[in-house]
Amino acid sequence: MATRNAVPPHHHLPTTHNHRVPVTIRAAYQASTIGQNPHEKPSKKAMKLAESLSNMLNLHIETTIQRSLNRSNFNVLSIEEKHDTPTMSPKEDISEKWREIHGCHDWDNLLNPLHPWVRREIVKYGEFAQATYDAFDFDSYSEYCGSCRYNQHKLFNRLGLDKSGYNVTKYIYAMSHVDLPQWLEKSRLVDTWSKDSNWMGFVGVSDDQESSRIGRRDIIVAWRGTVAPSEWYDNMQGQLEPIGQGEAKVEHGFLSIYTSKRDTTRYNKSSASEQVMREVKRLVEFYRKRGEQVSLTITGHSLGGALGLLNAYEAAKNFPGLPISVLSFAAPRVGNIAFRDELYQMGVKTLRVTLKQDVVPKMPGIVFNESIQRFDDIMGTLEWVYTHVGVELKLDVRSSPYLKKGLNLVGFHMLETYLHLVDGYHSSDSGFRVDAKRDVALVNKECDMLVDELRIPHHWYQLANKGLVRNHHGRWVKPKRDPEDVPSPNVEKSSNVLQVEEDYGFGSLFGV
Amino acid sequence: MATRNAVPPHHHLPTTHNHRVPVTIRAAYQASTIGQNPHEKPSKKAMKLAESLSNMLNLHIETTIQRSLNRSNFNVLSIEEKHDTPTMSPKEDISEKWREIHGCHDWDNLLNPLHPWVRREIVKYGEFAQATYDAFDFDSYSEYCGSCRYNQHKLFNRLGLDKSGYNVTKYIYAMSHVDLPQWLEKSRLVDTWSKDSNWMGFVGVSDDQESSRIGRRDIIVAWRGTVAPSEWYDNMQGQLEPIGQGEAKVEHGFLSIYTSKRDTTRYNKSSASEQVMREVKRLVEFYRKRGEQVSLTITGHSLGGALGLLNAYEAAKNFPGLPISVLSFAAPRVGNIAFRDELYQMGVKTLRVTLKQDVVPKMPGIVFNESIQRFDDIMGTLEWVYTHVGVELKLDVRSSPYLKKGLNLVGFHMLETYLHLVDGYHSSDSGFRVDAKRDVALVNKECDMLVDELRIPHHWYQLANKGLVRNHHGRWVKPKRDPEDVPSPNVEKSSNVLQVEEDYGFGSLFGV
Repeated sequence: MATRNAVPPHHHLPTTHNHRVPVTIRAAYQASTIGQNPHEKPSKKAMKLAESLSNMLNLHIETTIQRSLNRSNFNVLSIEEKHDTPTMSPKEDISEKWREIHGCHDWDNLLNPLHPWVRREIVKYGEFAQATYDAFDFDSYSEYCGSCRYNQHKLFNRLGLDKSGYNVTKYIYAMSHVDLPQWLEKSRLVDTWSKDSNWMGFVGVSDDQESSRIGRRDIIVAWRGTVAPSEWYDNMQGQLEPIGQGEAKVEHGFLSIYTSKRDTTRYNKSSASEQVMREVKRLVEFYRKRGEQVSLTITGHSLGGALGLLNAYEAAKNFPGLPISVLSFAAPRVGNIAFRDELYQMGVKTLRVTLKQDVVPKMPGIVFNESIQRFDDIMGTLEWVYTHVGVELKLDVRSSPYLKKGLNLVGFHMLETYLHLVDGYHSSDSGFRVDAKRDVALVNKECDMLVDELRIPHHWYQLANKGLVRNHHGRWVKPKRDPEDVPSPNVEKSSNVLQVEEDYGFGSLFGV
Repeated sequence: MATRNAVPPHHHLPTTHNHRVPVTIRAAYQASTIGQNPHEKPSKKAMKLAESLSNMLNLHIETTIQRSLNRSNFNVLSIEEKHDTPTMSPKEDISEKWREIHGCHDWDNLLNPLHPWVRREIVKYGEFAQATYDAFDFDSYSEYCGSCRYNQHKLFNRLGLDKSGYNVTKYIYAMSHVDLPQWLEKSRLVDTWSKDSNWMGFVGVSDDQESSRIGRRDIIVAWRGTVAPSEWYDNMQGQLEPIGQGEAKVEHGFLSIYTSKRDTTRYNKSSASEQVMREVKRLVEFYRKRGEQVSLTITGHSLGGALGLLNAYEAAKNFPGLPISVLSFAAPRVGNIAFRDELYQMGVKTLRVTLKQDVVPKMPGIVFNESIQRFDDIMGTLEWVYTHVGVELKLDVRSSPYLKKGLNLVGFHMLETYLHLVDGYHSSDSGFRVDAKRDVALVNKECDMLVDELRIPHHWYQLANKGLVRNHHGRWVKPKRDPEDVPSPNVEKSSNVLQVEEDYGFGSLFGV
């Protein structure tokens, strides 16, 4: 933990001024979601703040929606007709073009208009990132709260990703030595699978058929973020902490999640960094021995996008010559200019998908970097050095006729909203793609963003009876989790693709 | 519609002062539920009102709970041990005592302490009333919003009531000519099963085995109420309207729901009154012809309890000599003293289950009838003549160690809360029954009343993915309702017990 030790001890303690930002932002955030529940009454202050915030984001709050797609597209017939159509175009052979698709020319002439192959791959990786939310156990009454509900062999099958062409080989767990409010999902129960760790994502690898289609063996890492931005605005003000040997510095909250470990834990005897590096090394070496071309693609949403950049930085240091790309959604700034430049020098290619109306990609550094002075009383003094990495694909919620346009910071930040907008994106000055095929209903999984005409319930992604089932006596009980889905540090070490498992004694950048 | 025509026309119009009560009460109501959602902020005014209201109800808002049952009863072991126990004691033969159980001696010496047979029958009928909520389609995006999700042959099976010993023979639908805000559950869609009517309950009859156990053929009518009291506080100020030929008068909103019909509707060409009277007549005549002893037991919660009293009044007029009892939960006052006295003279026996902390049984007439002057500025002038009918079984939320005690007007009004407290009720001065068997988890179906130690999620009664399912393309769609569960006026006329169906040309009190 050399890097962490280099940080002055006060970085690990909450400082008083830190609390100014999150409280205010959270108030705006709460105000913004009002209207979904008629019983909620926003405070005047919160409403005013939300208004300022929306002005700052150039957000037009509209009550009626009339966009590029004709209103008649919403009639019952067309909605029901669409139900009988595929959700994707047929897969095409991209084996000759994968390097371009993964940014070897920095996506020049591929984003505006968006090349269909690039769009398709963005959605593919985005759905891996989405899987980390869909399978996460958020139930605070569950002893497995904070874990994945399925084991790695069942994950894709349970989420309808069994035709993705990838297999999961390892789950990643993370903890944090730094006290990050509302970061960790915790069970309310006393006896739980883990008191310190959360499931933070997975490593996977393309199967033979997909590898043939995409022109190489593709190792993926998908990082889970946090569901609502309010959960981690608190972390935004942390100081920069050095990474590596040079001038590169990154936000210390993100780094803590990526690098923390403790011997007394069950799932973080090794850090997330060590877990992922060990598994990537194993896979890279295995497939290189077979003479295959190997790539590493890292994806993540929100906090997951930040972790993905740290992951890419470390992987680039450890695997010179390995093509590494990062596909992030709604990710905040992570580090300083030196961090960015080192990533560039090492050849890491980053495509950063953002949404104009989403506040998270504007953080930290919203004040100076966005050149808006008006908010400095709210944001306080931030390190101005935070900077974004890579190429931006900027979406706009107003491009989709399916989406409500009212201020909804949760909805604007949701990965499903991003994936919908990518699916409909043609170019910066055109409307929503008429032949977009992705299932629109997915947008409302965890929010209320779809226009009423679509008749999709909001927040519909839920278990029957919150997981309670009637037993033979007629009592409603929470069934024990299937033993094979109970997280186990030992099980996590094995792989369904490669049965060989060794201790590589891998030395990561952050020490073992 | 003779009775309705006798009412001066202004009774059908909302009057200005009518609006004072509901708005204020609703504010208190909203304030009271705050704390369940950390995003909600109560207004000062609402909080103050809620406080006054809680004082008036002698409600002690407690943050820590320490009651008759020892805290250690909540440990994991005992909770999980209980999962393997039956939810009811074995059924006993009550055939010799059914008249007493149904109040022929006005429940003298049966309520304090509560006779186990009476307790058991109260819960039995209460679960029929609960079925009207559990099967109701509240989904405003459903074209069948406001109907029952299952047809009458499947209802009890789907709700786990297949061993109840009763069969449903007819569904009841109601509409209202009087504009009653928030009474009717309406679909947001254009094409719906009905624009005017809601499913309001059912008629059923005991099977041979149950009839033998309970000593007679028991016809039941179960009336649906409304889920949250806020939905119909608006109706509380309506003037009294004559019923029958004498001095008896009842609240005109309740009477409108019970008696309204219109030829252009599909489900209320006949009124709820006519539907239920016709079916009860059919069943009474059928079983009397077979020489059986027949009884009528009417049950309902909240608004359903009010409709039940109207139903009992009409049935008593039409079937002299038929033993009729009403078992109501959380029912408001319905009519004047003459109405009550007529019910008494006709021999209708009413057991009124109330909860000390529930505000609804105190309405209308909270000001004068409860002799609390402090609230008259809020309540305005009510007709003082509203009076309760029958014998009261008064529950107290503080008697149960399983329940949170904080102000929660929704939770206090829920039928499942009532059934839980009946199950644990021994006498007015004793604690919760140690051998109460009913499943405690049921309480939290639609509210957040159970203490956290029980680990039962709040508001857990929900469909998987709000009814959306993945089709073969992977799209999330709302499946068409099973045709046999689509409500049909024709189907409703038939019966699964008696196949003969005639038009009796039955003349109800309220005209045909």
